[in-house]
Amino acid sequence: MLYTRTLQALISELQKLPGIGPKSAQRLAFHLLRQPDAEVRKLASALVEAKERIRTCSRCCNLSESDPCELCLSPRDDAVVCLVAEPRDLVALERTREFKGRYHVLGGLISPMDGVGPEQLKVAELLARLQATDRVAEIILALGSTVEGEATSLYLTRLLKPLGLKVTRLAFGLPMGSELEYADEVTLARALVARREV
Amino acid sequence: MLYTRTLQALISELQKLPGIGPKSAQRLAFHLLRQPDAEVRKLASALVEAKERIRTCSRCCNLSESDPCELCLSPRDDAVVCLVAEPRDLVALERTREFKGRYHVLGGLISPMDGVGPEQLKVAELLARLQATDRVAEIILALGSTVEGEATSLYLTRLLKPLGLKVTRLAFGLPMGSELEYADEVTLARALVARREV
Repeated sequence: MLYTRTLQALISELQKLPGIGPKSAQRLAFHLLRQPDAEVRKLASALVEAKERIRTCSRCCNLSESDPCELCLSPRDDAVVCLVAEPRDLVALERTREFKGRYHVLGGLISPMDGVGPEQLKVAELLARLQATDRVAEIILALGSTVEGEATSLYLTRLLKPLGLKVTRLAFGLPMGSELEYADEVTLARALVARREV
Repeated sequence: MLYTRTLQALISELQKLPGIGPKSAQRLAFHLLRQPDAEVRKLASALVEAKERIRTCSRCCNLSESDPCELCLSPRDDAVVCLVAEPRDLVALERTREFKGRYHVLGGLISPMDGVGPEQLKVAELLARLQATDRVAEIILALGSTVEGEATSLYLTRLLKPLGLKVTRLAFGLPMGSELEYADEVTLARALVARREV
């Protein structure tokens, strides 16, 4: 009975979030109870609205409110498709203003430890997309330099090269062992410019 | 346009939470979008419900869905009132099952740096509560040993002692299960001063 039922329910829900342990959940809950009603309602409705409206683009598999997404509809270079693991990686690359081609969001990286193989990623969607057009000449692998990023890059290189595509990777310049989303914009831009064929 | 409007709205709302920076907010938002609809709705309604139902007990100023709260209504020792800064401190003390008296939640600690003085805390409510009864004999200050905790303890000691109340503080010493060599000097010094015959 230490916490009332609704407070315990809120703490339990907050605790399900990644990186939020019991102490942080408690702290967040108490913080929220101190906020004005309107603020908490704004958070709650932002959650529901985002969940309701945001879908996956059937072309590039990025998150979007429309299908195809704005990026797929905008005039860009169809000859180059940049593969990223997550939407946040796409955003990181867009911030560099260095890349003018298309994207494809894999939705993760190959990780046997977590039971993620190519079939859990949007690889079939990528192949279908490549088959539907002959405009694509180059695939850029922008998957970071973690073990999972390396494994996925290797897998995709072997898959895509036989299709007659030029496969390139972001240049090292990225700090080793880092994740793409934490790279600063200059490093990321440089890595993009100095990409190499594999 | 990197993020859609609703996604940006969600990230902004999450970023208002304490300890959640832009990167964490992004991460949480993407995590939530991967969750089933029902899960996100549960979080949203837990937020709204907690905010709607949870009020402050007019007696002890703890969070509660009823007024007076369950703790104030339960049969406990009226002679001892334990002062805590926050509801979570009350919960920590209740977990010990060591204390059978009443509580009073101050709602913070005196902190001139943050513009928090006694008038921002539930001190007036405490005095009113003490005036309404002659049952209280002892006040326990359970306010921690930070600068703010010390300042608040000092202030309350000066305020409450003249009322003829016994004012006590939690003992300071080595944490249980800790090794001597890792204790900081101040803690060790206090533990030495407060040594007891066994």
